[in-house]
Amino acid sequence: MMRIPESHPRYESLVTREKMVNAVKDNIIVQEGLIAHGRGEAYDYIMGEKTKKWAIQAIKASAVTLMNASYPVISVNGNAAALAGKELVELSKIIPAKLEVNLFHRSPIRIRKICDYLRSMGATEVLGEDAEKLIEGIEHSRSYSSPEGIIKADVVFVPLEDGDRAKALKAIGKKVICIDLNPLSRTAITSDITIVDNITRAIPLLTEEIKKIKSGTEKELEEANAFATEYSNRDVLKEAVEGIIEYLGEFNPVRSDTANI
Amino acid sequence: MMRIPESHPRYESLVTREKMVNAVKDNIIVQEGLIAHGRGEAYDYIMGEKTKKWAIQAIKASAVTLMNASYPVISVNGNAAALAGKELVELSKIIPAKLEVNLFHRSPIRIRKICDYLRSMGATEVLGEDAEKLIEGIEHSRSYSSPEGIIKADVVFVPLEDGDRAKALKAIGKKVICIDLNPLSRTAITSDITIVDNITRAIPLLTEEIKKIKSGTEKELEEANAFATEYSNRDVLKEAVEGIIEYLGEFNPVRSDTANI
Repeated sequence: MMRIPESHPRYESLVTREKMVNAVKDNIIVQEGLIAHGRGEAYDYIMGEKTKKWAIQAIKASAVTLMNASYPVISVNGNAAALAGKELVELSKIIPAKLEVNLFHRSPIRIRKICDYLRSMGATEVLGEDAEKLIEGIEHSRSYSSPEGIIKADVVFVPLEDGDRAKALKAIGKKVICIDLNPLSRTAITSDITIVDNITRAIPLLTEEIKKIKSGTEKELEEANAFATEYSNRDVLKEAVEGIIEYLGEFNPVRSDTANI
Repeated sequence: MMRIPESHPRYESLVTREKMVNAVKDNIIVQEGLIAHGRGEAYDYIMGEKTKKWAIQAIKASAVTLMNASYPVISVNGNAAALAGKELVELSKIIPAKLEVNLFHRSPIRIRKICDYLRSMGATEVLGEDAEKLIEGIEHSRSYSSPEGIIKADVVFVPLEDGDRAKALKAIGKKVICIDLNPLSRTAITSDITIVDNITRAIPLLTEEIKKIKSGTEKELEEANAFATEYSNRDVLKEAVEGIIEYLGEFNPVRSDTANI
């Protein structure tokens, strides 16, 4: 592994990349997870690697939705754990919500590894090791849930998931909140609230937003509720795509400061 | 490894993904190469996973430029070999051009592995194992060239490279042709001709174009030469970005057929 100098213009991206490569060695993520991470990198580039207004809106709606849920569950996969394990544990405590490990490339060893990792990050309870096939209408690997996990939830937060899981969860009546840097993905379209942002930036902002609402006035809570009620995921996704279009429109091949990577 | 059914709507993409994961196991590519592949996937999505007119233009200009070169060299890295090894060997024979293996994550074993792989795909000569530090003004791993390789070339074809290598090659007076799905990348901007397309689609088209020019009339060759002389990479990159903007503009979150992944 190379030593990345802090002065490197792409320092954060490179450190994250190194973190992901190490997560493969630690059996937290699979090789396919690296490809998925690369896709995320590309989408992040074309929105300028910043949390934009569409994400802020989705985070606001997510915060109050998770707070109001009677049984919220955060479904964690390998990439989510590797990228934001500590932040997800903190989020689960603030809401509070159950943490459950669910994998597409499912293996008991990886489930255990990720559960252990989340516990090492301070989680007191992590579901997933006791999973059974409880979710109908979806192929094998996504049909699992802990009896106390997503199957029992009213609101499921699935950072970095794929369209099939979001769809299956919707089909059994769950409210689904996701994080997806690709506003065109099936997950993004299927979910009730899609945070189009980098998970490493979005989770701390979501935690912050929940803290803010919790310490705010009754009136602020009412306003937050009204905002979530009127929230249109489709409008926000459209805004995200328009934002990307705007960003790309600024590209000028003569000016290298508009380039990326 | 899962068995991917041919009926799967994303069959080709999934097969390629599997190929890349296997290439890691075979030591052809490194983990970071999987992340790079993921970025490519995302850019390919937002241009509809089809070879577009901007790529056709770049391929046309590349074909005649490679044919007219006095010493053309194709610089192959792990991802290029894994994705289009066979096609690159065929291209090298048609031009004809030298094939040289150059790696950023350089190791003698990987160099040998990739050389062997290209030979197994029919290459009679592959440079790279005898590389020395011959290229100035660039950090360590990119300073290597075989004495008969890119250092001696007038035109270097670098499918799937990064901005630093393109820049270093330009600095020592080489004409640089690249393939990059990201039209905003430094490689894309730095190169003389950038084919904004998926390497698996672009290389066969490039080979085809060379064959066509070779079997064409004198007048057709003249026209091809004139086209390459007037070619503006910046205009073509702008077209690519505009094409992506157009594609994104068609996105409608109510219609799932405009979604991807």
